Amino acid sequence: MPGTPTRPKLSPTPRSTVTRYRDRAATDRSALDEVLDAGLICHIGVTLHGAPVVLPTVYGRSADTLYLHGSTGAGNLRAALTGDICVAVSLVDAIVYARAAMHFSMNYRSAVIHGRPVEVTDPEERLRALRVIVDHSAPGAWDTVRAPDKKELAATLVLALDLTEASVKIRAGDPSDDPADLNSDAWAGLLPVRQVFGTPIPAPDLVRPGAVPDHVTTRILTTR
Amino acid sequence: MPGTPTRPKLSPTPRSTVTRYRDRAATDRSALDEVLDAGLICHIGVTLHGAPVVLPTVYGRSADTLYLHGSTGAGNLRAALTGDICVAVSLVDAIVYARAAMHFSMNYRSAVIHGRPVEVTDPEERLRALRVIVDHSAPGAWDTVRAPDKKELAATLVLALDLTEASVKIRAGDPSDDPADLNSDAWAGLLPVRQVFGTPIPAPDLVRPGAVPDHVTTRILTTR
Repeated sequence: MPGTPTRPKLSPTPRSTVTRYRDRAATDRSALDEVLDAGLICHIGVTLHGAPVVLPTVYGRSADTLYLHGSTGAGNLRAALTGDICVAVSLVDAIVYARAAMHFSMNYRSAVIHGRPVEVTDPEERLRALRVIVDHSAPGAWDTVRAPDKKELAATLVLALDLTEASVKIRAGDPSDDPADLNSDAWAGLLPVRQVFGTPIPAPDLVRPGAVPDHVTTRILTTR
Repeated sequence: MPGTPTRPKLSPTPRSTVTRYRDRAATDRSALDEVLDAGLICHIGVTLHGAPVVLPTVYGRSADTLYLHGSTGAGNLRAALTGDICVAVSLVDAIVYARAAMHFSMNYRSAVIHGRPVEVTDPEERLRALRVIVDHSAPGAWDTVRAPDKKELAATLVLALDLTEASVKIRAGDPSDDPADLNSDAWAGLLPVRQVFGTPIPAPDLVRPGAVPDHVTTRILTTR
């Protein structure tokens, strides 16, 4: 786009450089944005008492910052502030059937981010970060619901992770079989996998049951 | 079932005991089996050069053992043999819309396993483990395709992780709003999320195009 400043490429450090299947590495920052925007949850790796712990959780992205949140009482998330963490967002697009057992695979889009998160303490940025996280899970809902109150904010830990040290890996396309296996009778190809939204189920105690708002219904037709 | 030996409950150690939202913890071993059998990929947390790394990958389960595999050249998986790892399998079932921003949530089923994997070296168990992994991604396909040859086996690292130290966390049901928010006009409820299989796409160079086998077509009607 004319006038858009060039954003730095991904993979600036050895640990965020893809070494296996290098042809699957994407280096454009827009590829990172796309994977993060398409995912619903991430998996955070933290070190706790010397051993790795993996935490599935929601997140949100604003420009080149990933926001995470949790309870101030959650030791695992607190541990994320004491050292480097690793965040993965993985989308499965297809199961790849091949003619040989060792060539079965997945088509996927995968983002992995390394870095040391910082706690967000500025009241305005905290509120903005929480909105980014809710917007990610439920776009359009924030303005319709009660905002966080003081007590809720005091009980919430908000973390910001810079999206500088990141890698994106994508496998797409057909199975990669050995030439010698191509005359096999076995079926080979792709079984597509999609995440879809179903019919909304209103809470049983809604004041106005029956009226599902547009920001929810429009999602049913989309896949991510 | 009569005659079935009682399997030990989950959560035998502090780190595999759910501390946040304890009411969401499942303690039956069958709950672990169900989450692992329903997932397509797992996220492995390993420590590499002192920092956590999260790896998305396929897996398979046989009784109380989780099998993982990768290239012998993959440093990340090699690192998994030098210390404890953490494996997470997470299934998102719904986005939970609430009347207050801080009560938005996900309905999910989540399994987390801690432990030190061992390399599988016995030739028969290695082959069985690889079959378990392929069966997990593509049930029914193994017998139709070429089995791993010596060269492929030599290039493959197979790991076994005991499913003893594991926890399962499940959130299901309606939003949990504060009583004071229940008269809100905001829509609250569940937006179901499902992973579905699409129409199989045969490889362009199939010897017998058009014949999609039953073990593939039967999956299209299922969700996981």
